Amino acid sequence: MSYFRPNIEAMASYQPGEQPRGGEFIKLNTNENPYPPSPAVIEAIRRVAVEGLRKYPDPMATAFREQAARLLGVEPDWILAGNGSDDLLTIVTRSFVGSGEMIVAPTPSYILYRSLAEIQGASFAEVPFTDTWDLPDKFDSPGARLAFLPNPNSPSGTMIAPQRVRELAGRLHGSSPLVVDEAYTDFAEENCVSLVRDLENVIVTRSLSKSYSLAGIRFGYAVARPEIIAGMTKVKDSYNCDAVSIAAATAALVDQEHFRQNTARIRATRERMTAALRNFGFQLPDSQANFVWCTHGPAPARRLYEELKNRRILVRFMSYPGSGDGLRISVGSDAEVDQLLEELKKII
Amino acid sequence: MSYFRPNIEAMASYQPGEQPRGGEFIKLNTNENPYPPSPAVIEAIRRVAVEGLRKYPDPMATAFREQAARLLGVEPDWILAGNGSDDLLTIVTRSFVGSGEMIVAPTPSYILYRSLAEIQGASFAEVPFTDTWDLPDKFDSPGARLAFLPNPNSPSGTMIAPQRVRELAGRLHGSSPLVVDEAYTDFAEENCVSLVRDLENVIVTRSLSKSYSLAGIRFGYAVARPEIIAGMTKVKDSYNCDAVSIAAATAALVDQEHFRQNTARIRATRERMTAALRNFGFQLPDSQANFVWCTHGPAPARRLYEELKNRRILVRFMSYPGSGDGLRISVGSDAEVDQLLEELKKII
Repeated sequence: MSYFRPNIEAMASYQPGEQPRGGEFIKLNTNENPYPPSPAVIEAIRRVAVEGLRKYPDPMATAFREQAARLLGVEPDWILAGNGSDDLLTIVTRSFVGSGEMIVAPTPSYILYRSLAEIQGASFAEVPFTDTWDLPDKFDSPGARLAFLPNPNSPSGTMIAPQRVRELAGRLHGSSPLVVDEAYTDFAEENCVSLVRDLENVIVTRSLSKSYSLAGIRFGYAVARPEIIAGMTKVKDSYNCDAVSIAAATAALVDQEHFRQNTARIRATRERMTAALRNFGFQLPDSQANFVWCTHGPAPARRLYEELKNRRILVRFMSYPGSGDGLRISVGSDAEVDQLLEELKKII
Repeated sequence: MSYFRPNIEAMASYQPGEQPRGGEFIKLNTNENPYPPSPAVIEAIRRVAVEGLRKYPDPMATAFREQAARLLGVEPDWILAGNGSDDLLTIVTRSFVGSGEMIVAPTPSYILYRSLAEIQGASFAEVPFTDTWDLPDKFDSPGARLAFLPNPNSPSGTMIAPQRVRELAGRLHGSSPLVVDEAYTDFAEENCVSLVRDLENVIVTRSLSKSYSLAGIRFGYAVARPEIIAGMTKVKDSYNCDAVSIAAATAALVDQEHFRQNTARIRATRERMTAALRNFGFQLPDSQANFVWCTHGPAPARRLYEELKNRRILVRFMSYPGSGDGLRISVGSDAEVDQLLEELKKII
């Protein structure tokens, strides 16, 4: 007999991305940053390790909130820290969507949104992007209690302009919050954080995993109006962020010079990589993220994925029903990208 | 208008325990360990800080699972790591209890269980402990989908003998899992981990916060049969534990000599503290945890709490409808406990 809820019983087991431990791989499959975090982060962790382990952490991560608020020009009570931005996506789902209610998200997109709906016992409506990765005019689904919009989107790396997101949020106003998932925004030219001032139903989520090179510590945050943040606070685990990661994330935000150099390098490599892959005959939409989405007419994506893996280069093979296959390739260091291009040349 | 679910809207805001930042307090209010963690933990954190931050952590915390499994004499797939044992209590709630279904727990006990029910939109049945902190014969509530049993219990510090827990689990078998919350078990003489071998509905949860002096890193684990662990894995956030805390928790488990000395000191101080408080006229049940639960006929608990706070000593004032007031006092270092007794002598 099973004690599990029927929706949990029916779910597929989670398949984590490939994280080879040991062996030398060039990892371009999980959008990790190839460069180390700020030295100030390492120093902050060392300090906490000596004096901050035996006591509970600050439940509201006040030091981080204050730093993030300063950076974004809002008050600290507009910020909620999370154990990775996935924690915040879980919190919004549990805050706004009851069992049997509906979540809407575009497709192809981040597969976690569907899992969150399944765990919650909610239904999930997918609205396909247009051929140019734009939003269809009717993105909102009647009766949905929550909408997710990853911006930039994964796997495409494409962005919906803030003005278009503002229009969408306005249409959803009064019926559902719109979560603008900005996990990749620090590699883009624009973002939607200013929308939270004008629209009470906009929640922006961010991650320090990619642009601050901190996937290992799990840290993200949400930006929204204080009444939204206060409600979400009820739903989070009491001590959802630990003392080490709060100190690390705060130190990372303080060192904006390191952040700017790091993200500028990624963007420069991304442009070079995009041009080279197009020269090889790949189709790529312009990416605003730290990865590119490649399809190639003659060469099947799965074969390229496997041949690259044989050559110790991991990229992400993705297959979406109705939208076909492709490779999502993270922007690595210049040396890693050179080797990728070298190997690809031999196999396409 | 509110976008929140009605159950979230109706919840009280979370009130974190007092964590004074700055100022010199003797903190005996949140059951933190007064002694530092193993030096091996600090060393492990330093190593990860240098090399492990930019990549995602191992989603299953394999190194920790293997170490915990070795310690408990089970296989690694009997263990699930969590971002504090609160994360695991959240996971079991979302795994087994649908909206409108019921959770049962004893009272007075850990207040989080009710919050978890409220967030899930579930009902919550409280079964009072007997006057001697024993389980009533009818602990189980018909139709409950999940039962929590903190053992040792907070605030009482008392324990239900494993044989009695086995009988309870047997009665619940076929209708609901029994979560034995062993956050404080490392200060007790017995525990229930062996029950998971025989009873598929028993889930034991543990915390490294207290006995390993690691409240700051948020780490706990569940022990249950592999099919239960596999189902709970679907519900957890993909990367619920970070790389730093996985390394720290693993190193802590390895250093069992430090653990034994640390917990033995706490137990010795607890016995001395218990005898002294009884001499002062307090009523205390025998504690198997790292705190004691004190009531005092003539002196109201709230006044003692406030006068101690004025003297820079924080203890936890707790008031339970129907069961009265009391002070839950954590076992501090010998010097801290001496000062507590000194000040108490002046005010009772």
